Amino acid sequence: MPQVFRLRCSLPTATGDTIQLAHGGGGRMMHSLIERLFLPAFSNSYLEARHDSAVVRIGNDRIAFTTDTYVVSPLFFPGGDIGKLAVYGTVNDLAMAGARPLYLSAGFILEEGLPLETLEAIVRSMREAAGIAGVELVAGDTKVVDRGKGDGVFINTAGIGLVAPEVDISPARVAPGDAILLSGDVGRHGITIMSLREGLGFETPLQSDCASLWPLIAALLEARIEIHCLRDLTRGGLASTLNEIATDAGVGISIDEAAVPKCEAVAAACEILGLDPLYVANEGRFAAFIAPRDASRAIEILKAHETTASIIGTVGNRGPGLVDAKGPFGHSRILDLLSGEQMPRIC
Amino acid sequence: MPQVFRLRCSLPTATGDTIQLAHGGGGRMMHSLIERLFLPAFSNSYLEARHDSAVVRIGNDRIAFTTDTYVVSPLFFPGGDIGKLAVYGTVNDLAMAGARPLYLSAGFILEEGLPLETLEAIVRSMREAAGIAGVELVAGDTKVVDRGKGDGVFINTAGIGLVAPEVDISPARVAPGDAILLSGDVGRHGITIMSLREGLGFETPLQSDCASLWPLIAALLEARIEIHCLRDLTRGGLASTLNEIATDAGVGISIDEAAVPKCEAVAAACEILGLDPLYVANEGRFAAFIAPRDASRAIEILKAHETTASIIGTVGNRGPGLVDAKGPFGHSRILDLLSGEQMPRIC
Repeated sequence: MPQVFRLRCSLPTATGDTIQLAHGGGGRMMHSLIERLFLPAFSNSYLEARHDSAVVRIGNDRIAFTTDTYVVSPLFFPGGDIGKLAVYGTVNDLAMAGARPLYLSAGFILEEGLPLETLEAIVRSMREAAGIAGVELVAGDTKVVDRGKGDGVFINTAGIGLVAPEVDISPARVAPGDAILLSGDVGRHGITIMSLREGLGFETPLQSDCASLWPLIAALLEARIEIHCLRDLTRGGLASTLNEIATDAGVGISIDEAAVPKCEAVAAACEILGLDPLYVANEGRFAAFIAPRDASRAIEILKAHETTASIIGTVGNRGPGLVDAKGPFGHSRILDLLSGEQMPRIC
Repeated sequence: MPQVFRLRCSLPTATGDTIQLAHGGGGRMMHSLIERLFLPAFSNSYLEARHDSAVVRIGNDRIAFTTDTYVVSPLFFPGGDIGKLAVYGTVNDLAMAGARPLYLSAGFILEEGLPLETLEAIVRSMREAAGIAGVELVAGDTKVVDRGKGDGVFINTAGIGLVAPEVDISPARVAPGDAILLSGDVGRHGITIMSLREGLGFETPLQSDCASLWPLIAALLEARIEIHCLRDLTRGGLASTLNEIATDAGVGISIDEAAVPKCEAVAAACEILGLDPLYVANEGRFAAFIAPRDASRAIEILKAHETTASIIGTVGNRGPGLVDAKGPFGHSRILDLLSGEQMPRIC
């Protein structure tokens, strides 16, 4: 999810302030940076739409355009690597605008001393992912920085896709009564990375959920499911995504925490590491805001694509900008944006 | 100029090889990386066109799409900064495909500890440059890496532009007899950066030539100048650019070295630093391959835009892939691709 220009918050910053890791974390500090720096500089109707992709009109076509940079550490992890992430991440941002992903660009920043074999493995993985996602990598660039001024490989991908004429997906369409559908379970990507860093082992090996979401979105669109908004759950996880939508759409959101699936390994690791799974990053999961009458049909369609899906909540008409979660014992808690960062360099 | 996927050369690399600064330098080693790694992985008709932008057809429109990453050091320099460079560089890559630049994305990699004021100054500069270039920045992303894993700020920009129906500009159109037009003089950007690093001072202050080239290209297109190919002279300078075109188009190129303008400060600095000005990077200069009957008219048009221009050579029909330069005393030398790198991190 490209997040430079999303959400308004207000944490004043003072002269002498510096960038912290938390400014990249998907939480309040990142949104403060957006508010203070990027939105005033570049504000335009495309950014104001606060979508995962900008949708621009060229000739008679609506083109989705998006970018994301990948700095994940380590470069390789169970279920993926930085290359696969860089392809699927940008493909998914296009898909979240309802756009068929078509073309990608790739910009590499390589650190002097990087083994060529490492780069080869990453490029192979990108090619495979591009093939699976049905996109062509048509433009690229390589820069090399001196040893100690980078960290192996950073990759930026930008993508363009085509939005079909009948598609109308954006935060502005989210409305009270919308059902909130979650694809799959939460936390696999973030916990996979954190477990690697912390040296945790699990009885059942855990893998990143890193995947192309376009086939699922294409199936929903083809079945004419009335989708109002889509967003993939990356940095900051489900809770941050719902906060963004609640703010952007000016609505309240209520979810049932028990309805949010988590596998055992994720739940256990979250306990050990002191993490809230609702805030853990995913790379192959999305939330869909859909007309309630289409909810059960949408779940059937995703099941036919071997993807579980759950209705986890609804959009309310009170408390715009607020997200609350009903807990297992019936109590509610507010899911706020975290100020900082549970997990740096997760993507 | 995005250079991942340009030119074929063959320097075999062996197991245990690592990335060196020269792999990012625009010379033979970079092209070897392209040949060995990127082209085999991603080869398609867009990359095979070896253009500064991929030109893809969407609906009835031809869309140019390109990317470049900027890692220039230092971040600020006379005449520009990394932000201005990131906007104009990508705008120029679109212009070199004859495309009107429309929209940009920006991906930032910030190093923990970067002063916010520095980022603010860069963002202001990007806004100003985008305004001048007539493009909108519509999508963005920010990542933060730990202290010592980056170098202040790296910026990737990708861009999309629209190619008018009558425009047909690509290396494949370069033909024997084409006049080679050079806009402006060479070496200002590279020498400005190197002088900063080496602490050289000049009597006449030297500035980077960093600028948007689209107004010049638009004027040439509007006047129906028969342009066969365009390329901006970035990493590796004029000589590397001509080598790329000679190889891509399968033609020989002859230039007259005395016809290539250099200001005094650039000439002096090149002597002191032991650099060949023909290989020094520029950020606001281009070479145009045009029908010879349009050469003098093209120069008049550029003059009307307060830009000097010179005919520096012609395309021959012998020695495909070779570039020779006639020197001041009538002798000729081959301008080969440098294997390495005169100046790392110039853009």
